[in-house]
Amino acid sequence: MTDVSAYADLDLDRSRRRGYPEAIYCAGKTPAQVAGIAEVVRDRADLVTLFTRADPAHAAAVRSVLPDAHHDPVARLLAWPPAVPAPAGGPVVVLAAGTSDLPVAREAALTARYLGRETDLVVDVGVAGLHRVLSRLELLRRARAVVVAAGMDGALPGVVAGLVSAPVIAVPTSVGYGAAFGGLAPLLTMLNACAPGVAVVNIDNGYGAGHMAAQIAAPVA
Amino acid sequence: MTDVSAYADLDLDRSRRRGYPEAIYCAGKTPAQVAGIAEVVRDRADLVTLFTRADPAHAAAVRSVLPDAHHDPVARLLAWPPAVPAPAGGPVVVLAAGTSDLPVAREAALTARYLGRETDLVVDVGVAGLHRVLSRLELLRRARAVVVAAGMDGALPGVVAGLVSAPVIAVPTSVGYGAAFGGLAPLLTMLNACAPGVAVVNIDNGYGAGHMAAQIAAPVA
Amino acid sequence: MTDVSAYADLDLDRSRRRGYPEAIYCAGKTPAQVAGIAEVVRDRADLVTLFTRADPAHAAAVRSVLPDAHHDPVARLLAWPPAVPAPAGGPVVVLAAGTSDLPVAREAALTARYLGRETDLVVDVGVAGLHRVLSRLELLRRARAVVVAAGMDGALPGVVAGLVSAPVIAVPTSVGYGAAFGGLAPLLTMLNACAPGVAVVNIDNGYGAGHMAAQIAAPVA
Amino acid sequence: MTDVSAYADLDLDRSRRRGYPEAIYCAGKTPAQVAGIAEVVRDRADLVTLFTRADPAHAAAVRSVLPDAHHDPVARLLAWPPAVPAPAGGPVVVLAAGTSDLPVAREAALTARYLGRETDLVVDVGVAGLHRVLSRLELLRRARAVVVAAGMDGALPGVVAGLVSAPVIAVPTSVGYGAAFGGLAPLLTMLNACAPGVAVVNIDNGYGAGHMAAQIAAPVA
Amino acid sequence: MTDVSAYADLDLDRSRRRGYPEAIYCAGKTPAQVAGIAEVVRDRADLVTLFTRADPAHAAAVRSVLPDAHHDPVARLLAWPPAVPAPAGGPVVVLAAGTSDLPVAREAALTARYLGRETDLVVDVGVAGLHRVLSRLELLRRARAVVVAAGMDGALPGVVAGLVSAPVIAVPTSVGYGAAFGGLAPLLTMLNACAPGVAVVNIDNGYGAGHMAAQIAAPVA
Amino acid sequence: MTDVSAYADLDLDRSRRRGYPEAIYCAGKTPAQVAGIAEVVRDRADLVTLFTRADPAHAAAVRSVLPDAHHDPVARLLAWPPAVPAPAGGPVVVLAAGTSDLPVAREAALTARYLGRETDLVVDVGVAGLHRVLSRLELLRRARAVVVAAGMDGALPGVVAGLVSAPVIAVPTSVGYGAAFGGLAPLLTMLNACAPGVAVVNIDNGYGAGHMAAQIAAPVA
Amino acid sequence: MTDVSAYADLDLDRSRRRGYPEAIYCAGKTPAQVAGIAEVVRDRADLVTLFTRADPAHAAAVRSVLPDAHHDPVARLLAWPPAVPAPAGGPVVVLAAGTSDLPVAREAALTARYLGRETDLVVDVGVAGLHRVLSRLELLRRARAVVVAAGMDGALPGVVAGLVSAPVIAVPTSVGYGAAFGGLAPLLTMLNACAPGVAVVNIDNGYGAGHMAAQIAAPVA
Amino acid sequence: MTDVSAYADLDLDRSRRRGYPEAIYCAGKTPAQVAGIAEVVRDRADLVTLFTRADPAHAAAVRSVLPDAHHDPVARLLAWPPAVPAPAGGPVVVLAAGTSDLPVAREAALTARYLGRETDLVVDVGVAGLHRVLSRLELLRRARAVVVAAGMDGALPGVVAGLVSAPVIAVPTSVGYGAAFGGLAPLLTMLNACAPGVAVVNIDNGYGAGHMAAQIAAPVA
Repeated sequence: MTDVSAYADLDLDRSRRRGYPEAIYCAGKTPAQVAGIAEVVRDRADLVTLFTRADPAHAAAVRSVLPDAHHDPVARLLAWPPAVPAPAGGPVVVLAAGTSDLPVAREAALTARYLGRETDLVVDVGVAGLHRVLSRLELLRRARAVVVAAGMDGALPGVVAGLVSAPVIAVPTSVGYGAAFGGLAPLLTMLNACAPGVAVVNIDNGYGAGHMAAQIAAPVA
Repeated sequence: MTDVSAYADLDLDRSRRRGYPEAIYCAGKTPAQVAGIAEVVRDRADLVTLFTRADPAHAAAVRSVLPDAHHDPVARLLAWPPAVPAPAGGPVVVLAAGTSDLPVAREAALTARYLGRETDLVVDVGVAGLHRVLSRLELLRRARAVVVAAGMDGALPGVVAGLVSAPVIAVPTSVGYGAAFGGLAPLLTMLNACAPGVAVVNIDNGYGAGHMAAQIAAPVA
Repeated sequence: MTDVSAYADLDLDRSRRRGYPEAIYCAGKTPAQVAGIAEVVRDRADLVTLFTRADPAHAAAVRSVLPDAHHDPVARLLAWPPAVPAPAGGPVVVLAAGTSDLPVAREAALTARYLGRETDLVVDVGVAGLHRVLSRLELLRRARAVVVAAGMDGALPGVVAGLVSAPVIAVPTSVGYGAAFGGLAPLLTMLNACAPGVAVVNIDNGYGAGHMAAQIAAPVA
Repeated sequence: MTDVSAYADLDLDRSRRRGYPEAIYCAGKTPAQVAGIAEVVRDRADLVTLFTRADPAHAAAVRSVLPDAHHDPVARLLAWPPAVPAPAGGPVVVLAAGTSDLPVAREAALTARYLGRETDLVVDVGVAGLHRVLSRLELLRRARAVVVAAGMDGALPGVVAGLVSAPVIAVPTSVGYGAAFGGLAPLLTMLNACAPGVAVVNIDNGYGAGHMAAQIAAPVA
Repeated sequence: MTDVSAYADLDLDRSRRRGYPEAIYCAGKTPAQVAGIAEVVRDRADLVTLFTRADPAHAAAVRSVLPDAHHDPVARLLAWPPAVPAPAGGPVVVLAAGTSDLPVAREAALTARYLGRETDLVVDVGVAGLHRVLSRLELLRRARAVVVAAGMDGALPGVVAGLVSAPVIAVPTSVGYGAAFGGLAPLLTMLNACAPGVAVVNIDNGYGAGHMAAQIAAPVA
Repeated sequence: MTDVSAYADLDLDRSRRRGYPEAIYCAGKTPAQVAGIAEVVRDRADLVTLFTRADPAHAAAVRSVLPDAHHDPVARLLAWPPAVPAPAGGPVVVLAAGTSDLPVAREAALTARYLGRETDLVVDVGVAGLHRVLSRLELLRRARAVVVAAGMDGALPGVVAGLVSAPVIAVPTSVGYGAAFGGLAPLLTMLNACAPGVAVVNIDNGYGAGHMAAQIAAPVA
Repeated sequence: MTDVSAYADLDLDRSRRRGYPEAIYCAGKTPAQVAGIAEVVRDRADLVTLFTRADPAHAAAVRSVLPDAHHDPVARLLAWPPAVPAPAGGPVVVLAAGTSDLPVAREAALTARYLGRETDLVVDVGVAGLHRVLSRLELLRRARAVVVAAGMDGALPGVVAGLVSAPVIAVPTSVGYGAAFGGLAPLLTMLNACAPGVAVVNIDNGYGAGHMAAQIAAPVA
Repeated sequence: MTDVSAYADLDLDRSRRRGYPEAIYCAGKTPAQVAGIAEVVRDRADLVTLFTRADPAHAAAVRSVLPDAHHDPVARLLAWPPAVPAPAGGPVVVLAAGTSDLPVAREAALTARYLGRETDLVVDVGVAGLHRVLSRLELLRRARAVVVAAGMDGALPGVVAGLVSAPVIAVPTSVGYGAAFGGLAPLLTMLNACAPGVAVVNIDNGYGAGHMAAQIAAPVA
C-alpha cells in the first residue's frame, strides 16, 4: 500500500498558525488517496476536518475510515468529527439567489457553521422580485458577515450591499444560460458591484465564501 | 472634389421601406465625407437625419452645410431638420444608472424624441440605492418602452424589468473599473438578467437603444 | 418531506405587478423540487405557468402533479393550464435561421403564444439563400414583433431588421462549428447588427425572446 | 447653470442606512459636475465625503468649492472634511507587492483611514523575495483585516492568507507585462488562491478594498 | 550608419520561389530602417515592392529614396515602381460594407492591382439595405475572386457568398461600437458564415486579402 | 408524419445560382429530419448532395433512404449519388499536419473531390520535422489550391504559403493540449501567418475548406 | 490492413538531428493507428520511444505489439524499451503543488528520467503552507532544472524561482474551481511570475516540461 | 525628500541567494523613485544592476545618479556598472523573427550578456522564408540556449526547436495585425509548439527571456 507522503503532505500546523484547519479538496484525488488522508486526520479529533467537492465515491471512502462523519450530499461536503462546535463570534447569513444556487450556498453555510459561527440560510431571493430580499432586511442587518451565492446576472450581492453595513462575500455560481459562460458573467457583475462592500471568491466556491465569512465574523480577541 | 458615390451610397429608400430614416455614423468617416453626405440629405428635409458619434470636427462639417442643425455635444449627436416632430405613440423613459452614463442615455433619449416619441430622462438611479428607482415607479409604469443605460455591474435593467410590464432595452456603457473590460461586464449582466423582458444593444450604443424604443412605442396602425 | 420554502420562494405577485406570471426554470433543480413547485401553482389556475428547460425527468415530475400540462419535448417546455389564451395585441413572427435552431425558436413561439399573442413560426430561412427570407416579406411586415433565432454567423436578424419596421428580438443559438464558441459568435454579430432595430437576449434563451416579443406586441391600454 | 439633479441624485441617506457615506467616483464626470456635487456635500460636514479617481481637473474643481479638502495626487483621492476621524475598531494593514502598486495601495489605506480605522501601509514585499513578507509577520498578525495590492502574478495575497488568521482583501492592479492583460492575470490568480481567506475586488479598485477592510475591522456593536 | 543586415534580411528570392515579391510591413520599423530597405529595393526595379502600414513618416522616408513611388495615404500604402502592371488573369472585385471600411478596402484593391489583376472597388453596400448589393450582382458574378471588407456585424461576406460562384475573401475591420471588440465580432461572423465559399484574413489586413485574391485570380498556367 | 417544410426549406436553387449544390449539416438535426431531407434530394440525382457531420445515427438514416450513398465514417461524410464526378479544373492538395488532423483533412479532400477536383491527401507533415514538408514541394507546387489542416500551433499553413504560389486555405483543428483552447490557438496562428496567401475557415470545418479549394481550382470559363 | 503511411510519417531522424527521439501523442489517434506505429518503433530498440496521453485502449494497443513496454497509468505514459537509461547530466527536481497535480508531475518526471536524467519528485508543497517548500530548499538548490506543476493560482513556480539559481519550468494544470478556466488562470500567473527564471509550457503538458528540463540538465559537451 | 523605504525594499540579498541580482522594472515608477533606487545601488558596484522598461525620463533619472551607466534606447535598458562581465558558461543565440521584434530581442541579448554569457543576435529570420533560418543552423547548433522573439504567428520557435538540441526560450511580441491581440496569438502558438523543447515567457519580456537563457547556459558547477 502506498504511503500518504507519496501524494500528500498535510498542513497539520495550519490550525495553530492561522486558527483554522486545512480542508481536503477531493476533486482530482482518487478515493484511495482521500481514504489515506482520512486515516491521518482520524488521529486529530481536536481539529474539524472538512472534505469538500466529494463525489459519492469520495464520500464512501471517507466514511469507510470515519464512519460517523457528517455528509451533506447536496453540498458535496463531509465533516469530521460530526458535531458542530458551539457558536462564537457574530452571525453569518447566507443567501441563495435561486433554487439552483442551493448546493453552493449550503457548502458556504456548513463551512461557516463548522468553523464555529451561527449561520442562517435563505433561498430564492433574486432581484427579479425585490420584495423577497427587502422582507429579509432585519435578518440581514443583524449579520456580521453576509454570503450571497448567485448565478445568471449575479446582481444580488450589489443590491444587498447597498442595504446593510456588514461586508458581503459574493460567490458566483455556474448556473445560467449560455452567455453566463460557466459563471463568468456573475463573477464580473460582482467584481463591478456599484455598492462598495462586496468582495468575490471563485465560481461555485461555497467553501471559500463560508471560510471568509467565518473569519470576518470571528470573535474579536 | 470627390463624388459622394466614391465613399457612400445612402439608403434613401429606408424610410419608405422601414418607416425610419437612415442615420449617419460619423466615426471612421472624414469630416469631408460627412459634409458630402450632409449635402445629399439637405435636399431631403422631409426626413429627419441623425448624425451620430460626431466629434467636434464632424459637427463643424455638418453645420457648414446645415447651419441650423441641432447639436448635442454631450450625446455627440446632430439632427436635421432641427425641429422635433410632434409626439406620437406611447411614452419612452430613459434611465441613466450613474452620472457617467449620461452621454449614452442622452443619445438614446434624443434619438427616440427625433423619431417621434415623447421621452423622459432620469439620471443616477443605480441599484446601490434602491429607493432612487423605487421612487420613480409611477413614471416607469406609464412607459411603453424603457431604456436603461448602465456601466459597471449593469444590474439596473434587470431590477427595473422586475417592476414594470413594459419591455426594457438595456444598453451597457463602457464606464467602470478594470474588470468592466470596456463594457463587457455590464453587457453580460444584462444578457443574463434574471427577469425576462430585457433585451440588449451594443456597448455605448444609445442610438440603437433609442431607435429600438421608438419602434416598440410606435403608434399601432 | 421537505417544505417548498427550503428551496424556493415563488413570486406569485409577479403577475399582478408586471402583468406576466413567473416561469419555472428547471435546469439545476431536482425533479422533486420541480414537483413541489408544481403543487404550489396547481392552486393558481388563473395564471399560466411555464416550466422551461425541462428535461424528461423534470417533465415527468410536472405531469405527476399536473397530468394535463402541455408538454413540447423539442422546446423542453411545459405549460399549465394547457389551453392557450385567446390572442390579444399584435402578431408575433418567429424565424429559425436553420433546422438546428428549431428547439429555441419553438420555445420562443410557444412562450409568446401562451402569453397571449398570435404567433407564426417559419423555419430555415438563413442568409445563404436570401430568396427564402425575401419570399416572407409580407408575413414579416404584418408582425408587431419579430423573433429571429440563429446560430453560426447570426446574420439573419440584421438582414430582417433592414426590411421591416417592427422591432427584432435576436436570440443567438449554440449551433455551429468550433469558432461559434457555443453561441458567442452569433451573439456578437447580433449586438453589432448594422441595421438599428435589433436587441439581443441570452444564448439559446427562446423563453426570454418570446416573453420580450409578447410584451412588445401587447395590447395598448 | 445646470441643476445638480440633471446629472446626479446623491444618496445622502446611505450613511444612515449602511453606516458609511457615499463616495463620488469622478471618472466620466466633468469637472463642472464634480464641482456641483461638491456644493451639495459642503452642507453635510457631518459626513466624510471621498472623491475618487480624481484627475487634476477634478481635483481643482473640488478645491474650488472645498478649499481645505485633503488631496492625495498619488491615490487620486480627495477627502472632505480633511481631518481624519479618531480610530475605532481593529487595525488594517495594507501591502503593496511592488512600488508600481503604490497608487492603488494608498487609495485603499486612505479610504480605510477616513472611514475610521487605524491603518499601516507596507511597500514592496513581493513573493520573489519571501523574506520581505516573512519579516512583517508580527504586524500582519495584529491586523483585523489585510489588504494586498498586487499586479503581475498577483501571488502575494494567497501567500499572506496562508500565514495569518485575518481575512485578506486582494486588489489586482493593472501593472505588468503584456500577458497581465490589464490586471486580468492577477485577478484570476487571486480568485484561485489556494489558501482560503482571500476575497477579491475590482482591478485597481483601492477604494473598494479599503472600504471592505474598514467594514471588516469595524467596531463590534 | 547602420548596415541593413543589422535589422533586416530581405527575402529577394520570394518572387522567384512564389511568383510574388516580398512586401515591407512598416509598422514597428523606424523611418530610418524603412529608408534603408528602400535603398535595397531601388536596385530591383524588376519587382514591384509594396510598403504597407506606412504612416506619414514612413512614407516620407520611402519617398526620400524612391521619389516617384506611388503613395495612397488612405490605404497607407506605397508602391514602387509606380506604374501598375498590365492586367492578367481574372477580375477581382472589392466591396467595402461601409464608408469607414474604405481604407482597408483600398489597401486590398491596390494590392491586387499592383500584383497584376484588373480590380473594381464598390463602397457602402452593407446588409442593412440589401438592394445595394443585389444591384451589383452582375459585376460580382463576373469576378474570379471577391474581397469583402466589413466591420460591425461582418455579415456581408456570407450574404455575397450565397449569391456568387467565385470564392470570397473576407477581411474584418476594426470599425464599430464597443462589442465589436476591435474587429473580433466581424472576424467571428465571417469564420462562421453559413454559406461555404468564405475564407478569412486578419483584422484590417487589406494587404493580405488583396494578395490572396490576386493569387486566386492568377492566370492559369 | 411531419412534412419537411416544418423543419427545412432546401435551397435547391443554389446549384443554378452558385454552381455548387447545398450540403446538409446533420449536427443538431434529428435522424428523422435528415431522412426527410434525404427523400427530397433523392429526386435530384443530377446534383451531388453531401451530408456533413453525420454521426452513426444520421448515417443510418441517410442510407435507409439512399442505400447506395457513399459513407466515410472518419470524415463523418455521406455523398449521393456515390460516384465521384470526372475531375475538372486544377489539382487540390490537402495536408494534415498530424495523424489526429486526419478526420478534418479527409472531409476537405472528399468535399473537393465530389465537387469535381482532382485531389491528393498527405498526412503527418508537421513543422517539427521540416524535411517532411520540404520533400513534398513538387506535389505542392503543382496544386492550384492547397488545404492545410493543423491543430496545436497551427504553424504549417504559413510555412507552406512561403514555399508555393497557390493560395492556401488553412483549417484549424481542435487537436491539442489545454492552451489550444479547442482550436482557438491554431486559428489565431493562421490568421496571423507572416506569409501572405493564407486564408482561414472555421475550426474543424473541413467541408468549408474543401469547398473553397474547389472554387479556387474551378475550371476557368 | 492500412499502411502506416496513410496516417503517420514518423520522424525517425529526429534523434540524430536533435539528440532526442520523437514521442507518440496518442490522443486523437485510434488504437489501431497507435499499434501500427508501435510496430515501426519495435525495430528501433536503440531509441527510447514514449507514448503519451495514452488511455487504456491505447495502452493495450501498444502492449499488444510491445508486451514489455513500461506503463504508468497515472501519467498515461508508456515507454519502450522499458529500462531507464543510466543517468547523465545534472539532476532534475519535479514539484507537484497539490495531490491533484500528480498525474502531470509524474509525466514530467518519467519523461526526464527516460531521457537520461536523475529525477526527484516531491508532492503537495503549495504556497498555502510555505514551510513545505522551504523545507525542501536543499534538494531544490542541488537541481540543474526544476519543474513545477501547479493548478489553481499557479503561484508556486514564482516562489520557487525566487529561492534557487536553476531555471524553473512551470507547467499549469487544469485543476481548480471555475475561474481557473481549465488551467488558464495558473498559465497566466506563471507567465507573469515576478521572479525571473520561470518559463512556461502548455496546460497539463508534463511531457513537454520533462523534455525541456532534460535538455537544460543535459551533459555539457 | 522621501526615503526610499516609502516606495521600495530592494532585494539586495538576491544575488547571494540565487546567483543573479535584482533588476529594476521602471514602468509604473516615477523618475524620482528610479533615481532614489539608483542611489542605493550606487554603493553596490559588485553587482550588475539592470534598469528595464526605462523610458527617456527614467533613463535621465538613472544617469543623473549613475552618469556612466550603459543605455540602450532601443531595448529601453540601462546597465550599471557599464562594463560587461567576462563571458562564462555556454553561448546564447537570440533570434528576432522580424525587424519589428528587434527591441525585445535586444533586451534579451543585453540581459544575457550582462549576466555573463557570450551572446549572438540574428535578425529577420521569419518562417515565411525558411532558407533564412536554415542558413543559420551551424550557429544555432552551437548554442547552449536559444531565445526566439516573434510576433504575428509566432511560429519560429517551434520550427527552430525541431532543428536543434538546445532548449528554446520563446518570447512573444506585441507586433502584428488586429487578431494578434497584443501578442496573445504568438503566445498561444508558442505554448502549443509541436516540437518539444520550447518554453515561453511573457509578451515582450525580453529581460525574462535573456535571464532564463543565462541561467540555462550558466557554467556547470
